[in-house]
Amino acid sequence: MTDISLLEGLATTRAIRRYTDDRIPPEDLQKILWSATRAPSGSNRQPFRFVVLQDGPNAREAKRLIGEAAQAMWSKKVVTDQYEQGSGTDHNSPKAKMARTMQHYVDNLHCCPVIILPCLVRYRAPNSMEGGSIYPAVQNLMLAARATGYGGVITGFHHAVEKELRPLLKIPEEVFIACTVTMGKPKGRHGPVRRKPMGELVFEESWDLTPSWAVDPEGTRFTSGGPPG
Amino acid sequence: MTDISLLEGLATTRAIRRYTDDRIPPEDLQKILWSATRAPSGSNRQPFRFVVLQDGPNAREAKRLIGEAAQAMWSKKVVTDQYEQGSGTDHNSPKAKMARTMQHYVDNLHCCPVIILPCLVRYRAPNSMEGGSIYPAVQNLMLAARATGYGGVITGFHHAVEKELRPLLKIPEEVFIACTVTMGKPKGRHGPVRRKPMGELVFEESWDLTPSWAVDPEGTRFTSGGPPG
Repeated sequence: MTDISLLEGLATTRAIRRYTDDRIPPEDLQKILWSATRAPSGSNRQPFRFVVLQDGPNAREAKRLIGEAAQAMWSKKVVTDQYEQGSGTDHNSPKAKMARTMQHYVDNLHCCPVIILPCLVRYRAPNSMEGGSIYPAVQNLMLAARATGYGGVITGFHHAVEKELRPLLKIPEEVFIACTVTMGKPKGRHGPVRRKPMGELVFEESWDLTPSWAVDPEGTRFTSGGPPG
Repeated sequence: MTDISLLEGLATTRAIRRYTDDRIPPEDLQKILWSATRAPSGSNRQPFRFVVLQDGPNAREAKRLIGEAAQAMWSKKVVTDQYEQGSGTDHNSPKAKMARTMQHYVDNLHCCPVIILPCLVRYRAPNSMEGGSIYPAVQNLMLAARATGYGGVITGFHHAVEKELRPLLKIPEEVFIACTVTMGKPKGRHGPVRRKPMGELVFEESWDLTPSWAVDPEGTRFTSGGPPG
């Protein structure tokens, strides 16, 4: 149990893609999933559901399917995002490091400690705003993992194997599988959260007008958006 | 500054619809918005933007437009969700209390201390999963408000007046306005977070199978989903 302050949690929760072999004990899973279900949703309808996959027979099969999908998706991304070109040819560049991290991540995804599929039970036609009733709960999930000493990452790897996953896990057709979260105890060193400068993301009174108070605190680490250049 | 623990923050952040007249000082807005920008997004593209509206001329006009939209939307909801029927006729019922809270909220929305419009800069066609790159940041926003002594609520009130808001605030056409967040210092008493029992929301191995560890902690308060019955 490593609970930290709320503001510190928001500042330091980042994608974690390397895990030890440790399982997440039930008392920690309980805390993490309970925290997720405290999230807001439209009219407090609570359409969010969480399918937890550890090491039962369905979990093992689902992890295998999702792991294969992840490997295929990453192989494509290496080409489309040019991970093996430009600075990617330099072993020590951020691009090459990211590529090694991702390759290790997708190759080991089938044996990560826990996969969680956050889902949304739809009550009307799909639309972009429906995400407001599921992704806040996903963020609670990630933050609660941080609070209890775990880490994870939000991915879309289920998407390519939805047809196989739905019957396996008995997920009804009207249910939107919002993402695939992998989770475990962080292994090795993980760098700080890196984002664009706050002044590029926060406006006041009008689009693109940066307020005078939008100043990053000392020590903030930066990165440009998207795959490394 | 009332920072609390991360797990406690996740457990106690709820919709706040009544505010004092206090403004939110720049140093607190800075903390709240900076925390929002620490959120994850697909490939760390950081497509999230936040338009903050306080008391400038555009803010006042936007608040007026959104306030009117909120009143109109609530008037409709009173009818469609039957707030004045059934238990709604009993002054002390949860339904009648919720109706009074909402009426007060929409009638005062034009003068709430801060409105924030979280936006997503699209780089591909709209889809339900794009919410994964904006609503986690919105949840960070709500949690950071809680950490600094403020509260707010996520709404969709901008939707009916988007045509007026876009030119006023110079929000480009390709930008998705994800929600309208109102925020201020909480006024009066606010009840605890109430949700469905965890066992109805968390499954393991298969849809609708509740794991043995999905047990709400002592003291958890419950409610059914959606508008009060």
